[in-house]
Amino acid sequence: MSTDTDSDADGESTSKCGASTDTDTETSSTSKCGASSSSTESETESADSGSKCGASSSSDDSSSSKCGGSSSSSSSSSGSKCGASSSDDSGSNEKEVGATIEDFDAEPGQLIAVGLGPGHPEGMTERAKTALLEADHIVGYTTYIELIPDEITEQADEIYDTPMCGEVSRTEESIDRALAGNDVAIVGSGDPNVYALAGLALEILESKGATASMVDFEVVPGVPAAQSCAARLGAPLVNDTVSVSLSDHLVPMPEIESRLHSVASENFTITIYNPWSRKRRENFEKACEILLTHRDPDTPVGIVHGAGREDEQVMITELGELEELGESEIIDMTTTIVVGTEDTYVWDDRMVTPRGYETKYDY
Amino acid sequence: MSTDTDSDADGESTSKCGASTDTDTETSSTSKCGASSSSTESETESADSGSKCGASSSSDDSSSSKCGGSSSSSSSSSGSKCGASSSDDSGSNEKEVGATIEDFDAEPGQLIAVGLGPGHPEGMTERAKTALLEADHIVGYTTYIELIPDEITEQADEIYDTPMCGEVSRTEESIDRALAGNDVAIVGSGDPNVYALAGLALEILESKGATASMVDFEVVPGVPAAQSCAARLGAPLVNDTVSVSLSDHLVPMPEIESRLHSVASENFTITIYNPWSRKRRENFEKACEILLTHRDPDTPVGIVHGAGREDEQVMITELGELEELGESEIIDMTTTIVVGTEDTYVWDDRMVTPRGYETKYDY
Repeated sequence: MSTDTDSDADGESTSKCGASTDTDTETSSTSKCGASSSSTESETESADSGSKCGASSSSDDSSSSKCGGSSSSSSSSSGSKCGASSSDDSGSNEKEVGATIEDFDAEPGQLIAVGLGPGHPEGMTERAKTALLEADHIVGYTTYIELIPDEITEQADEIYDTPMCGEVSRTEESIDRALAGNDVAIVGSGDPNVYALAGLALEILESKGATASMVDFEVVPGVPAAQSCAARLGAPLVNDTVSVSLSDHLVPMPEIESRLHSVASENFTITIYNPWSRKRRENFEKACEILLTHRDPDTPVGIVHGAGREDEQVMITELGELEELGESEIIDMTTTIVVGTEDTYVWDDRMVTPRGYETKYDY
Repeated sequence: MSTDTDSDADGESTSKCGASTDTDTETSSTSKCGASSSSTESETESADSGSKCGASSSSDDSSSSKCGGSSSSSSSSSGSKCGASSSDDSGSNEKEVGATIEDFDAEPGQLIAVGLGPGHPEGMTERAKTALLEADHIVGYTTYIELIPDEITEQADEIYDTPMCGEVSRTEESIDRALAGNDVAIVGSGDPNVYALAGLALEILESKGATASMVDFEVVPGVPAAQSCAARLGAPLVNDTVSVSLSDHLVPMPEIESRLHSVASENFTITIYNPWSRKRRENFEKACEILLTHRDPDTPVGIVHGAGREDEQVMITELGELEELGESEIIDMTTTIVVGTEDTYVWDDRMVTPRGYETKYDY
């Protein structure tokens, strides 16, 4: 199933090797923990965003949460937040986040960015589970929250999940809750360092006049989509590799094209994130064209949609066939594509990129 | 502590973000499960390889293992194997592996390549633990085997670990044991797809006339060193990234240099594996020189030695300072280096590579 939405912050995510049923519309909201948002704007359109958009909290008693500081916003920590409680629907494309460190008078809690891995509980690390069990609040995109085993979410004082809301507001929410004194885990699938929330959290912390040290900021790494998908394909990534996202939502397309040219002309395997959406199918077409100027049409290409999940699809094809697959169900924003090197071959339905042992060993 | 040895197959490994006390001398051995090796040769020198080299098995009763098939080799599955039981010490640099599918008459067991993650038990996924618990035999480099919790290793019929022996013979050993009817897990830290054993296993399976399907070959992904180390540094990898190994043991240095030029001129973060060893300090010097031809001397660089382990060292420095650190203890084959982009900055002792949100959002 394809979507229109570039959910980059969640790009390294469940949806990458997982479910593709939800889009993550980027919509800011007023912060619930001390912030007063000055603008709220749905940036991307989604047919069902009205019905799906809204924050939910697992706690019936939101006042038990140390959430607020000297908030100027009247919103509580539960209830619908996305595109509904705007105080200034300015129509601009910019989102502002509100509260600064001055708005909080509590001793800050901890903020941990936790990578859930490929999107099934078995793919989580023990450290990720412990971090979630120790958190007072768990914040994340609804689809990711649903991946967390019940025995963990039941331990939390509050779950803050936004089904269709944006990563910026959700990340700010997690920071405000930490600054208000709660130990907070913000989750995403894959790894927090791969097209994901670790950087955004640090940027927003800085913008608030806070520091990473103040909330004892920690990143708990997870298995990235490139690795989950490569595992399904065999051994395509055992030599030097590169990851490129085709989403031009946050990076200009000419820059992406230039990167593709530079790495396609060298013998890197190339993992492509966010390969296709209806709004920018031309990015995918352009990428295929660039890859074909440097590599043979019979170069093996692995395509993984929903690795390890119910809707998993795995296909090994050739570079010359890739572009036309852009219009098929297997390639959308939830798919990861691995483009082999000139040495990569397919054997017994597996992609193999030799590390070079065959040049030194006889086997 | 630096070593002389390029342990590439184990490059994405414990030692990468972990212990650096052992070198993994690449030494082939006769296979214990049906193979008769025609050459055995220690390829790299190590002062203490004599005393450390030898396979060990946790089973006192090696005959209980379904190990052998129609083996023409008289060796059992325990006892010293490395550089000791050679039937043809030819002096050539090539290693031959012995048994083919014809040498086994059992119904093959399963072969799983399991990534242990960063090198502490908390970094393992649940899936990795389950795979190890279900395995009859666990095969790996001694340092990795020691990372596995006792409650898992105690469940196995046999542990085959080679403290100083090579990845080729160890991988063949795991395959022979699977072909002889055992369910075998071959382990490495990090991810089996990152400079690691997944590819080698498929190559050796093919060379034996076996297939991946025959042993129901599966890869269980783990958290790669790039992710473990990035987590210690903050958020250096949130945009497009590349991984390059500076070991020229299996890839010619001119090829590595060309790759570095191509990616340094684009705005990728660059994760460097296997950065330095005494035998090839010039590779590191050359890499620093290439990076400096494309990036400013004040580009942030993160250095992580032994992430999450007792000997962990984390340093954030600048590209202009990197080369001279090659001679210090923090950089050796067990270190991972993350070179920032032109946008990467250091804030509150963290490296941050912006994803691009600041171009669209005001926070």
